[in-house]
Amino acid sequence: MSIDLEIAQAASLKRITEIAESVGVPTEDLVPYGWTKAKVPLPVLERIEQERTPGRLVLVTAMSPTPAGEGKTTTSIGLADGLNERNRRRAAAGEPATGNAVLALREPSLGPVFGMKGGAAGGGYAQVVPMEDINLHFTGDFNAIALANNLAAAMLDNHIHHGNSLDVDVRRIHIKRVVDLNDRALRGTTIGLGGLNGGVPREDGFDIVVASEVMAIFCLATSLADLRERLSRIVLAHTRDRKPVTVADIGAAGAMTALLRDALAPNLVQTLEHTPAFIHGGPFANIAHGCNSVLATRAAMALGDWAVTEAGFGADLGAEKFLDIKTQSAGIWPDVVCVVATVRALKYHGGVEKADLETENVEAMLAGMANLEHHLTVLREVYGLTPVVSLNRFPSDTDAEVAAAVAHLREFGVRAVPAEHWAHGGEGALDLADAVIAAAAERESGSGEDRTPRRSYELSDSPEEKLRKIASRIYRAGGVDIPSSVAAKLRRFVAEGYGELPVCVAKTQYSLSSDPSLRGAPEGHTLTVRDVRLSAGAGFIVAICGDIMTMPGLPASPSAERIDVDAEGQITGLF
Amino acid sequence: MSIDLEIAQAASLKRITEIAESVGVPTEDLVPYGWTKAKVPLPVLERIEQERTPGRLVLVTAMSPTPAGEGKTTTSIGLADGLNERNRRRAAAGEPATGNAVLALREPSLGPVFGMKGGAAGGGYAQVVPMEDINLHFTGDFNAIALANNLAAAMLDNHIHHGNSLDVDVRRIHIKRVVDLNDRALRGTTIGLGGLNGGVPREDGFDIVVASEVMAIFCLATSLADLRERLSRIVLAHTRDRKPVTVADIGAAGAMTALLRDALAPNLVQTLEHTPAFIHGGPFANIAHGCNSVLATRAAMALGDWAVTEAGFGADLGAEKFLDIKTQSAGIWPDVVCVVATVRALKYHGGVEKADLETENVEAMLAGMANLEHHLTVLREVYGLTPVVSLNRFPSDTDAEVAAAVAHLREFGVRAVPAEHWAHGGEGALDLADAVIAAAAERESGSGEDRTPRRSYELSDSPEEKLRKIASRIYRAGGVDIPSSVAAKLRRFVAEGYGELPVCVAKTQYSLSSDPSLRGAPEGHTLTVRDVRLSAGAGFIVAICGDIMTMPGLPASPSAERIDVDAEGQITGLF
Repeated sequence: MSIDLEIAQAASLKRITEIAESVGVPTEDLVPYGWTKAKVPLPVLERIEQERTPGRLVLVTAMSPTPAGEGKTTTSIGLADGLNERNRRRAAAGEPATGNAVLALREPSLGPVFGMKGGAAGGGYAQVVPMEDINLHFTGDFNAIALANNLAAAMLDNHIHHGNSLDVDVRRIHIKRVVDLNDRALRGTTIGLGGLNGGVPREDGFDIVVASEVMAIFCLATSLADLRERLSRIVLAHTRDRKPVTVADIGAAGAMTALLRDALAPNLVQTLEHTPAFIHGGPFANIAHGCNSVLATRAAMALGDWAVTEAGFGADLGAEKFLDIKTQSAGIWPDVVCVVATVRALKYHGGVEKADLETENVEAMLAGMANLEHHLTVLREVYGLTPVVSLNRFPSDTDAEVAAAVAHLREFGVRAVPAEHWAHGGEGALDLADAVIAAAAERESGSGEDRTPRRSYELSDSPEEKLRKIASRIYRAGGVDIPSSVAAKLRRFVAEGYGELPVCVAKTQYSLSSDPSLRGAPEGHTLTVRDVRLSAGAGFIVAICGDIMTMPGLPASPSAERIDVDAEGQITGLF
Repeated sequence: MSIDLEIAQAASLKRITEIAESVGVPTEDLVPYGWTKAKVPLPVLERIEQERTPGRLVLVTAMSPTPAGEGKTTTSIGLADGLNERNRRRAAAGEPATGNAVLALREPSLGPVFGMKGGAAGGGYAQVVPMEDINLHFTGDFNAIALANNLAAAMLDNHIHHGNSLDVDVRRIHIKRVVDLNDRALRGTTIGLGGLNGGVPREDGFDIVVASEVMAIFCLATSLADLRERLSRIVLAHTRDRKPVTVADIGAAGAMTALLRDALAPNLVQTLEHTPAFIHGGPFANIAHGCNSVLATRAAMALGDWAVTEAGFGADLGAEKFLDIKTQSAGIWPDVVCVVATVRALKYHGGVEKADLETENVEAMLAGMANLEHHLTVLREVYGLTPVVSLNRFPSDTDAEVAAAVAHLREFGVRAVPAEHWAHGGEGALDLADAVIAAAAERESGSGEDRTPRRSYELSDSPEEKLRKIASRIYRAGGVDIPSSVAAKLRRFVAEGYGELPVCVAKTQYSLSSDPSLRGAPEGHTLTVRDVRLSAGAGFIVAICGDIMTMPGLPASPSAERIDVDAEGQITGLF
């Protein structure tokens, strides 16, 4: 049995009503899903937002990761538990309170659960629970999203079948059907086969649900009305004379919103240490913005003195999109940014091969600092934010490596602390909590940076200019290569009125550049934009710079083969 | 706004905890889904089954219907409300109690909700509520079933992609992926396109989720262990040398069961009159057995003195499968069978055309009695049951027609009463409730038929012999035509060890025969078996006798276009 599942199943959970009461949400206001999960309805959250001052927002992001991941989710959970542990200790000692913390995280997709990577509910003693439920279709949000997406696709094909009065060009259909599984065989399909009663034949394919625009919309919507409005704007296809065909045109917006109505309320669960955690939404971090729902983040801010949330991938992708896209549509801005680093990722970016990452190598670790330092500099200089580095400790890290890393970063002028929440829960993240509290205090005292939201580009910039600014400021690129076919697509987006949308770059997370083999802090490279796509409902233009897989496949021996349930309903084999 | 939705939204619902307490299930034992829906965990049901005597079981079935449907679900709800209303009145009058009633019904599919037929939560003043939730993916059971089914399909294609060590023949794959929508364009597909990374190309297609074997299994399973065992047995494909490849062979049974673990607990809701109602599972009534889950029916029997449940289509299909398949795997047997008839269906079977069904025509109505009488005779003579006829009143029925129908049926020797639950709720079904109570009393006094479960065939009969017996006894057919290719498939099923499974006939519901234009009680016709399929996990052989659509399409103007949600979350346009 996996250690994570063992710890999770041994945990003693509080009733979700008790968790909610602890942050002032009465039981009557909850929509329970069992006794340890609940949705908090949007009218309740709106009322609380009006009544209370929002808490401070802490964004957890990371340096460019290794393929094993550096523990952003685990750190987010550990930090929130650490903030609450600090608050409890202060109270016990009769000292001034530091305030309570509430988490906001993404929901896991079933793709990795049944594939290779496993679940996404944290790990060790920094987990959200009930772990099995969260990992196994939870409160059904992803299914609602899949149904809404697939209803639009079915209605579009149905429209074509019944005469196609909108003159949809079957070669220019952009929406794909989705499923929340890794299902390689559905990447490329033909549909509508079988003659007169089987619809109109066309080339097609399926994506995983987290890659859908409906998922991105779900996570950016600020209300049910905003959700409906955004869904209406999705461009499903183009006509033969190149006019956009939207969800509104085929009359699907109302039914799609009806399918999503209940799902839109954020899900409340708890950490192993009973910190309230909103787990809601989970768009891809490449072709979408990679953050939990705006509503979950705002819910955490409404209920907590501290709200801890996370953005996918490294800071060049996750934090950039969080800051340039999500905060702006949500009307929020972080007070502190926690950048997760690991000794092994530092060594990796210092040139050490994967097989050697567990061998002590202070020199390589310091050489890899260039990557982390660049991310820190971007957060400070481009966005005016206050970063804190969490050095997420792994068993193979040596004390010498950790000490050298911390000393180096402090010299660089940033708060940096080792964190051991995986092994010790909130207690292992007390120093990190203190660093975050200190950074926020400094900022609030006026000695810190200014607090105005900033973007890395202006919305009035052309899409090309936006890409150039992101590439040079965030990726250290020397230039952007936009092939003429792609430039023509961008001109078309501008002509259709989408020129002022932000851009959402899909590229590798393993390098600042679009070449995963360029580690450290490469400079002067060229960002090649292979393709662009419009997400008119989500409200961004996706720039695809690399191989982006929107339907993963299962490995030769998928995790699903090892998952089981005994006659009493106890699940085994999840990790 | 539709009248059904208007009535449902105006209803005052009780807390589901209160509904559960009313039948002796403490709040602590429930798994709430919001405040008006809950799942009752299997261990709780098992405990109650051990503690209490099971209630009497009333099966609601129907004469051969018109395309508009005769109101089986509405009658089931009305009868349960009527039984409870009678019980309350007795108590109020200080008379001996007649016992409380609990419902067990199928969950609606989203296909008809967004297509043409609308929802399936009853109608008028005989509804289960919350109507919008029940009709719009409810507690997520169908999504869990779709995921489990699609995981098996993905793992099979993944196995083929990664070397196909089982030697699966891509031309002999039986499992289809499913979605809970009417999506015509997915009927015929090719998948695995796009080269090396896209899997292995093959011809494929999608079914609607209610047509899947996983759905049938879900509804026949008696425990989590039985569910896992049945899933393991599903034959997904055959190898090139014609050996079956099962779910167990590809290692998917555990993960499929994990996905279905929570879904397997029956969902508890209430009628407009607060009768407890289990709404759980919903397999097709043609290629599957068309009844709610065994667990829901047993839950209703455990908690009610009366359990009212329904079988899909007319009695030749629904009741036959309920009796020959479901009761036997569930270990239950009905005490009374309520056969729903309508004046318009009687006229239809008496030869009146659809457009003229609202015109009074006593003679035609009496001519159509042949159909109803045949169903009644089968229930009595083949199965030894006690039928009661519920004449479900429609506004266009004249008093003369109703009086003549009742008089005729009483002369035929059956209890027959008009019922007006659509217009008046339980009060409109008091006479029906009394008829059911009287029939059960008669049976229990020993003057009724014997109570031994019977099948219309023996399990030891060959599949051909089973079909011949069903055809002659239930359909009044003169013979069965089994083409040699179909006979060869049946021989293969027998050779593989499936010869003793019951058969599940898929044919039109509009006629006793397989020709929908043969109304009344046709005799001597031939049942042509076009194809047979094995559902090894569900435990039956499907005999396809007619055009069976396992993936419906949307009409030119689907209902989905008229469904909407306002900014407060109120849903409109459902019917």
